[in-house]
Amino acid sequence: MFNGPVPEPDPSQFPGPDGAFLEDFATLCAFGATPGGGVDRQAGSPADGEQRAWLTRKLQDQGFEVEFDRVGNQFGLLEFQPGEPYVLVGSHLDSQPTAGRYDGAYGVLAAAHAAFRLAAEWRGRETAPRYNLAVVNWFNEEGARFKPSMMGSSVYTGKLRPEDVLTTSDPSGVTVREALAATDSLGQGGGPTAAYAAEIHIEQGRSLERDGVAIGVVDSNWAANKYEFDVGGEQAHTGSTVIADRHDALLGASMLVVAAREIADQFPEGSVHTSVGQLDVYPNSPVVVPSRVTLLLDLRSADEELLAQADQLLLQHIERIERAARVTISRSGSHCWPVTPYQSEGVELAEKMAANCGLTYTGVKTLAGHDSTNLKDVVPTVMMFVPSVEGISHHEHEYTTDRDAVAGLRVLTEVVRSLCRGDLDPQ
Amino acid sequence: MFNGPVPEPDPSQFPGPDGAFLEDFATLCAFGATPGGGVDRQAGSPADGEQRAWLTRKLQDQGFEVEFDRVGNQFGLLEFQPGEPYVLVGSHLDSQPTAGRYDGAYGVLAAAHAAFRLAAEWRGRETAPRYNLAVVNWFNEEGARFKPSMMGSSVYTGKLRPEDVLTTSDPSGVTVREALAATDSLGQGGGPTAAYAAEIHIEQGRSLERDGVAIGVVDSNWAANKYEFDVGGEQAHTGSTVIADRHDALLGASMLVVAAREIADQFPEGSVHTSVGQLDVYPNSPVVVPSRVTLLLDLRSADEELLAQADQLLLQHIERIERAARVTISRSGSHCWPVTPYQSEGVELAEKMAANCGLTYTGVKTLAGHDSTNLKDVVPTVMMFVPSVEGISHHEHEYTTDRDAVAGLRVLTEVVRSLCRGDLDPQ
Repeated sequence: MFNGPVPEPDPSQFPGPDGAFLEDFATLCAFGATPGGGVDRQAGSPADGEQRAWLTRKLQDQGFEVEFDRVGNQFGLLEFQPGEPYVLVGSHLDSQPTAGRYDGAYGVLAAAHAAFRLAAEWRGRETAPRYNLAVVNWFNEEGARFKPSMMGSSVYTGKLRPEDVLTTSDPSGVTVREALAATDSLGQGGGPTAAYAAEIHIEQGRSLERDGVAIGVVDSNWAANKYEFDVGGEQAHTGSTVIADRHDALLGASMLVVAAREIADQFPEGSVHTSVGQLDVYPNSPVVVPSRVTLLLDLRSADEELLAQADQLLLQHIERIERAARVTISRSGSHCWPVTPYQSEGVELAEKMAANCGLTYTGVKTLAGHDSTNLKDVVPTVMMFVPSVEGISHHEHEYTTDRDAVAGLRVLTEVVRSLCRGDLDPQ
Repeated sequence: MFNGPVPEPDPSQFPGPDGAFLEDFATLCAFGATPGGGVDRQAGSPADGEQRAWLTRKLQDQGFEVEFDRVGNQFGLLEFQPGEPYVLVGSHLDSQPTAGRYDGAYGVLAAAHAAFRLAAEWRGRETAPRYNLAVVNWFNEEGARFKPSMMGSSVYTGKLRPEDVLTTSDPSGVTVREALAATDSLGQGGGPTAAYAAEIHIEQGRSLERDGVAIGVVDSNWAANKYEFDVGGEQAHTGSTVIADRHDALLGASMLVVAAREIADQFPEGSVHTSVGQLDVYPNSPVVVPSRVTLLLDLRSADEELLAQADQLLLQHIERIERAARVTISRSGSHCWPVTPYQSEGVELAEKMAANCGLTYTGVKTLAGHDSTNLKDVVPTVMMFVPSVEGISHHEHEYTTDRDAVAGLRVLTEVVRSLCRGDLDPQ
């Protein structure tokens, strides 16, 4: 594990526009900065509001018109062809608690700087590109405070209803609508119409670093089955109740957490990922056997057949645990997606642009969900990764070198240029 | 498991003072009543403040002087012999969340009614008893909101320092001092001096009901080792981080919960009780591998040798889990007590009074901690149990029949009469 705080961006090593990008990135890292060198700017928090206001000013300074849609997605619009659809390029600025600096934020700022470069180029020209250009900061990709994740892009792509999203509450009872209003991010309408989309993100895995490759071109996402389980027992006294009389919901939940790992271990290394990230105990008192535990359990794989096998094993474990711990286990929610490809013409375009920039590239799959996972289901979408040092992710020590960050920005600029020109339009 | 809400007290079946007791108990059940037929009146909550104000009025109506000490212990004082010490009789009114009606509350109200009966008797007499009489409602026996449990009686008996208690916070940051002030329960001084103490409580186990015995006379408490553990891992992405790179604090914590039960199962049935009642996960986000889990783990036994063996097994499990889950496990707090006897002269007194009342009785041990567990370490203390239907405890369905409740009150009255007379004084 990478130790100590991550190095600061050093713009002095990169003259010109790349240095300007790194300077802005250093500024962005200060919003919601944590003592451990990371950030905490959960969706709709004051720190999220501050970074959104800062991005608005940056975009407006470069002549972009800024608008928020009805669920807080932030768009910087530059119109070349009135009435024509947009190339949407961006990611998300919100973070997990005690998160790293790069997840999402790198992609939004790279999108903005790619757009600034292209805007400067095209403003002086007689021939405008085929499509308009929009930088986008999707609302609540992380899903740490408000569930589910990828919220803003899910509404944009018609997978979630705006009204359901706006009435969603965080654990303290604050709704998305209230959080958006408090951060000046509540707009109207459904945002600009998209023709194409592009996103760049840190890999959050080790493969690019290990293989010494600069650009990962994402050709598909892993399938995921995400389940919410409700484990039911009976309150009892932890001291006086004999073991045989107990229906301990926390014991059942703990057996389920252990079973999830055992399932991953039954498959070839790296082929199935399982985890429980969230678990809440009731009444969570030192001397009361818990009566209820809720938890979120994920199963993921690039192979849908393996995922189905893992799912079957999970069902067997649940039956065993219900008997052994004398609890009930019910599934109170699920969010599943299959392996789906990114459009092959977008993959080819990204590979070509990486080669044009003189950079190494390779095809990769995304294990995590991204806003582009949603976008690709409605328009042709290009998704690219830059290397993550030691694969560290959702951790304050998450890090991508300045050199890799700048290289990714260059390829993204070329990809967006090509998309705006309509190079991927059917001939 | 006992199903459906518990029956209401029915004073109409018990004429005279027993009916008056049941009427008051029905009134008491309404403070902090839950939809499931139980109560939620955690220490220092508004419901706790309301029941304390009600008890103050009840005591004052019967001529008792009410005072609160510096940590919110509530005393109803009746002085027969100015300057002499008191017989303290009582329990606690605070409860767990979604708790039963009887735990603690039965003992406080039985103490008050025993005292009312004796007060009425002695007021008209020429010869006063040897000791003064105090009804007591100890602050925060449950420890659900403010840790540790048995807080008020621990300060009274010199085991905790008042200043440490007053600055203790609940999870939302409210201190004991603030909660006591908000419920008009913050007084001064250390309370009246005790000569003897007595408490009656529901058994919270099945033995009396199973054996058809009316009164359990407690001769000792189980030994307990209560530990707070801190499980440390590393934040990571639940989707993209390969299993081999994970340091999952929740996996480690879950293995510890499972290990605790396995330890109990290794000993003869009923000889060792283990449990984890409280467990908190950080950052507790759906897509983040948890970096830190804190949990409270108890080991209890009536046999100190078995408890030491269980403790040794726990250490072995911890070493195994640290390696298997690649986490660190450290003990951040502990609260341990040995098997200690209640004074034999008190046990004999209670047995004699039960027999005088024509009731069956038997010697029992207390598995749970009680305020009397503290009191017996400073003055001779009598502790008695009445049967719990199906042994249900810390649950809304906790229940003791009116007949058993009234029988306990009668024996308690006789015990307190005898203690006030000085029958246990050295000859």
